[in-house]
Amino acid sequence: MTVITKRFEVESRGENVVDLTPEVQRCVSETNMANGVVTIFVTGSTGAVTTIEYEPGLVKDFPDMLERVAPRGSSYEHQKARNDGNGHSHLKASLVSPSLVVPFVDRKLTLGTWRQIVFVELDIRHRSRKLVLQIVGE
Amino acid sequence: MTVITKRFEVESRGENVVDLTPEVQRCVSETNMANGVVTIFVTGSTGAVTTIEYEPGLVKDFPDMLERVAPRGSSYEHQKARNDGNGHSHLKASLVSPSLVVPFVDRKLTLGTWRQIVFVELDIRHRSRKLVLQIVGE
Amino acid sequence: MTVITKRFEVESRGENVVDLTPEVQRCVSETNMANGVVTIFVTGSTGAVTTIEYEPGLVKDFPDMLERVAPRGSSYEHQKARNDGNGHSHLKASLVSPSLVVPFVDRKLTLGTWRQIVFVELDIRHRSRKLVLQIVGE
Repeated sequence: MTVITKRFEVESRGENVVDLTPEVQRCVSETNMANGVVTIFVTGSTGAVTTIEYEPGLVKDFPDMLERVAPRGSSYEHQKARNDGNGHSHLKASLVSPSLVVPFVDRKLTLGTWRQIVFVELDIRHRSRKLVLQIVGE
Repeated sequence: MTVITKRFEVESRGENVVDLTPEVQRCVSETNMANGVVTIFVTGSTGAVTTIEYEPGLVKDFPDMLERVAPRGSSYEHQKARNDGNGHSHLKASLVSPSLVVPFVDRKLTLGTWRQIVFVELDIRHRSRKLVLQIVGE
Repeated sequence: MTVITKRFEVESRGENVVDLTPEVQRCVSETNMANGVVTIFVTGSTGAVTTIEYEPGLVKDFPDMLERVAPRGSSYEHQKARNDGNGHSHLKASLVSPSLVVPFVDRKLTLGTWRQIVFVELDIRHRSRKLVLQIVGE
């Protein structure tokens, strides 16, 4: 058993939901571990990680659904502290989660065919995002 | 330290929220590990995993709450891609999460008395669902 | 590689969102492990764990957002089973998650500057809450 850390960045400019699956699979393969778990963690407080079937419809529908829960136009107390207009972004990110754990077996993520790992950009400014992969296995 | 993979299937026909606790506890016990973590991962993209107090009321209330966030009757872009009427199912599943990590100590899940591990069926067709347990410990 | 369990309690009286970061970091440091993952798990069924920028605004906004998803005043089936008025608390807790996994590298949680680990009290009675930290690393 060992633990290996990988880091990479995602450019969210132009799209809000970014497929991380190829990069996560590549990082897992590089470790030469056969079996274990990979924790995908987003360090920024207005980004999140989950899984979804990565097709153009759901990529629009998912942020739309979150907008229903925490609309941009609502009044948030966060605005008093920061005055940066992204209170809704923080709330959505805390709801979805900064962290996802995916098993891998025989070097392959156990995702199934229709489930991809995605980074979800929730801020009003798009930017470069840091991700940490912590891979524990043998 | 070692890692052991267990797989099992859940029949969601007839109920939407299925108690996985006895099966997960059984799998952890079979490994003969004393301490570690178990990652419960659902491979299908319209199922999710979380914890809840497993009683008949909440088993109805939880899907009802998700229906408020992503109603069946709403219009989803996913419909254009797949035309299968389950856009809301994908969105709910991505919100709840495909993955849950639970510690075990002295061979026992640290769930407390009122918290059970559940599979949540969110699709419109019920069916057999594949779950992967990745157990890491010693 | 080894696994070390730490437990502590949180008093949620007086605030609904409690910053766990210093305590989690202290527990990780005490293990003398350099790299790994810590699973933070809440045993009570009406509490949850996530991350947020810990400032007074978001600490109010986050419970307010959850109130939109599962309002206190709604009718829940849970009431028939328990008659304790906290159906909304269970639902919010199951949505947010009882469990969070955070990597640590060179003995330090990879949280970034603006992201803290928080316990979220969702019950109508505040009280002492048990948390389990399962630390896996080397």
